[in-house]
Amino acid sequence: MPELRKDVFRDNWVVIVAENALKPGQFPINRNQVKANFDGSDCPFCEGHEGRTTPEILAIRLPGSSPDTPGWLVRTVPNKFAAFNLEGELQRSREGLFERFNGLGHHEVVIETPWHYQEIQHRDIDHIAHLYRLLRQRYQELRGDDRIKYIQIYKNRGLFAGASQQHSHSQILAYPIVPKQCSAVGNYFEEYQRCLICDTIKAEFTNSIRIVAESEYFLVLCPYASRFSYEAWIIPKQHREHYGGISDAEIGDLASLSKAYIGAMMETLDQPAYNISINTAPVNSVLDKGFHWFMEISPRLMVQNGVEIGTGFYMNPVAPERAAQILGQTMRACREESKHDK
Amino acid sequence: MPELRKDVFRDNWVVIVAENALKPGQFPINRNQVKANFDGSDCPFCEGHEGRTTPEILAIRLPGSSPDTPGWLVRTVPNKFAAFNLEGELQRSREGLFERFNGLGHHEVVIETPWHYQEIQHRDIDHIAHLYRLLRQRYQELRGDDRIKYIQIYKNRGLFAGASQQHSHSQILAYPIVPKQCSAVGNYFEEYQRCLICDTIKAEFTNSIRIVAESEYFLVLCPYASRFSYEAWIIPKQHREHYGGISDAEIGDLASLSKAYIGAMMETLDQPAYNISINTAPVNSVLDKGFHWFMEISPRLMVQNGVEIGTGFYMNPVAPERAAQILGQTMRACREESKHDK
Repeated sequence: MPELRKDVFRDNWVVIVAENALKPGQFPINRNQVKANFDGSDCPFCEGHEGRTTPEILAIRLPGSSPDTPGWLVRTVPNKFAAFNLEGELQRSREGLFERFNGLGHHEVVIETPWHYQEIQHRDIDHIAHLYRLLRQRYQELRGDDRIKYIQIYKNRGLFAGASQQHSHSQILAYPIVPKQCSAVGNYFEEYQRCLICDTIKAEFTNSIRIVAESEYFLVLCPYASRFSYEAWIIPKQHREHYGGISDAEIGDLASLSKAYIGAMMETLDQPAYNISINTAPVNSVLDKGFHWFMEISPRLMVQNGVEIGTGFYMNPVAPERAAQILGQTMRACREESKHDK
Repeated sequence: MPELRKDVFRDNWVVIVAENALKPGQFPINRNQVKANFDGSDCPFCEGHEGRTTPEILAIRLPGSSPDTPGWLVRTVPNKFAAFNLEGELQRSREGLFERFNGLGHHEVVIETPWHYQEIQHRDIDHIAHLYRLLRQRYQELRGDDRIKYIQIYKNRGLFAGASQQHSHSQILAYPIVPKQCSAVGNYFEEYQRCLICDTIKAEFTNSIRIVAESEYFLVLCPYASRFSYEAWIIPKQHREHYGGISDAEIGDLASLSKAYIGAMMETLDQPAYNISINTAPVNSVLDKGFHWFMEISPRLMVQNGVEIGTGFYMNPVAPERAAQILGQTMRACREESKHDK
C-alpha cells in the first residue's frame, strides 16, 4: 500500500509508492543515458490501442462510439501505476518521529488526443477546449468525495519533465492532505483578507515588465521569483478559487491562449521538455478562501542539482523580465504570421 | 548582479543569476537530448590545465610545487559562473510584493583529483581525507566572514544530477541568508531542547531496519521519508553542529566509510548520477543550537515531475527499508571481496 510519510527534517510529506517498487536497473534514467522507449510504435495511448489501458472513466466521443474503442478525442483512465487508491478511510499512525498516512487518493491519466505526435500546439482550439472541459468535469466529480482534500492537474512533457510516455497526456492526482505549498497563499489571506494572486495581477500591471500576453479572461506572466527559466503562469483575471469553477467562455479563451502561448514557448526554446501544473484551492476544507487557480508552465532546461536538494533554493539563470520580453516577442510574431496566412 | 528574490507563493527564495543569462539554445538539455560535452579531451579541471581555471584559493600540493601548476591532489578555485559575490553589504529592498536581496556570498569549485576519470570510489583513502580536510579549512575560513549565514558543500555527479563537468568536483556555496529547509530542525530544538538528528539516531537503532552500515564515528542510514530512491545519509554519531568541527579521527573514518558506501551504491545502481549535500548549522547566527551536520547522498534515478513542482510532494517508488537492505548487502559483499583480495 502506498503511503505518505512525514519528512520531519523539511516539514513536508513524501509519497512512498512501495507497491510498485522499482528494482535497480528498472529506472528510466541511468549511466547518464535515457532508457525509456520514446517512439510511437507500441504506444498504449494511441487510437486503436484502447484495450491496453485500464477501462475509461470518461471520454469526449463521437456519437455512437462505445467506451474503450476508437472514436474519441480526449479520454481519461485510471493510472495503472497509481500513487494512491480510494479505498477505506484516511488512517494516520505515529510512532515517535515516524508518522504516516495511508495512500488514500486517486490518480488518473488523461489521454489528450488519439494521435501519437499531436501535441497541444498542433491541435484545433475546439479539441483543446474538450480537454479543459473534461478536466473540469473530473475535478467537480472528485471534489464530491470528502476524503479528498486537494486535486492537482498536471502534465509531464518529455523525458526531462518526468514523462514516461511520449503521447500527449495529463494526469489528475487527488490527495488526502493539502500540500504545504498552499500555505503561503492561505496565510496571506488570513493576514490581509485579500487574494495574493489578485494583488499580484494588480502589481504586475503597474509596469507590465513581466507580462507576456493578455486575452479577454486571462493573463500570461513570468512570475517575479520564477523558479525555472522561462517559467510562465496563465492566470484568470477574475478571482476564482477552483479550476472546477472555470466558465465556458473562459474555457474557449484559455484553449486559444494556451495554444498560442505553448506554440510560442516551444518555438523560442527549441521544443523543450516542460511541466504544467494547475494550482488551485484545497477542496472539502475551510481553507479555500483567498486561493485563485492558475496554470504554471515550467520548461525544463536545467536539472535540479545539489543546491536545491540541500537548501530548497532554486537557481534560475534567466531574469523573468528578460524571459517575458523574449516570449512576448515570439508570441506576437507567431500571431502576425498566422494573420498573414489567412 | 545576481539576486535573491522572495517567492511569496511558496514562502521561499529564488536565486536569479541574471548576469550569466543563458540564451535559448545555450541550456545543457533540450529536445530530450543532452548537449553538454562530457568527455575528457578538453577538461579545464585536469592536471596540466591549471591555467584554464581562475587562480587557486587553496590546494593540497606536493612539497615544492607552485600554485596553479601541476603537483596537487585537491585544489579549490573561485567558480567562474559564481551565483554570488562577496562585495559590499547585504542590501534588502522591497516594493510591495516584490522583495529582494543582492547576491552577497561566495561560490567556489573544489577539484577533487588531478585525473579525469578518477571518481571517489577509485581513490586512495588518504586522497579522500585530503578533500575532507580542505573542505573543513575552507568552511572555517568562510565562517569568519560575518556577512555569511550558511555554508553549503555539495557535489553534482553526472548530467542527471546537474553536473556540467564530468571531472570529479564539489562546490562550496556561502549564502547571505539561512535556507528555509533549516527551520524544521531549529523548531524541533526550540520545542524539545533536543537535537532532532540525535533523537533520530536513537530511534533508528531500536530496530535498525533502515541502517545500511556503521563505523566507529558514523552511521549510514536510509531516512524514513527518503525523497529519492536509495537516498542515504552519513551521520556523525557524536553531536556536532558544524561540518567545520569535524575531528581528524572522524575525517579518516569518513574517508574510508564514504569510499566503501559510494562504491557499493554505484555498483548497486549501475553508476547513476548522484548529488551529495553536506547539511550543517547556520553560521554567524544564534540559530546553530540543535543542528547536527550530515552528508546526504541522493542517486538521481528519476526526474522531478509535475507533482513535485506543483505541490512540493516528492514521490519515491522504493521503500527506504528495502533500499537499506539492498545497499547494506552490497556493501558487506564488497567488503568481503576486498578482504579475500588481501
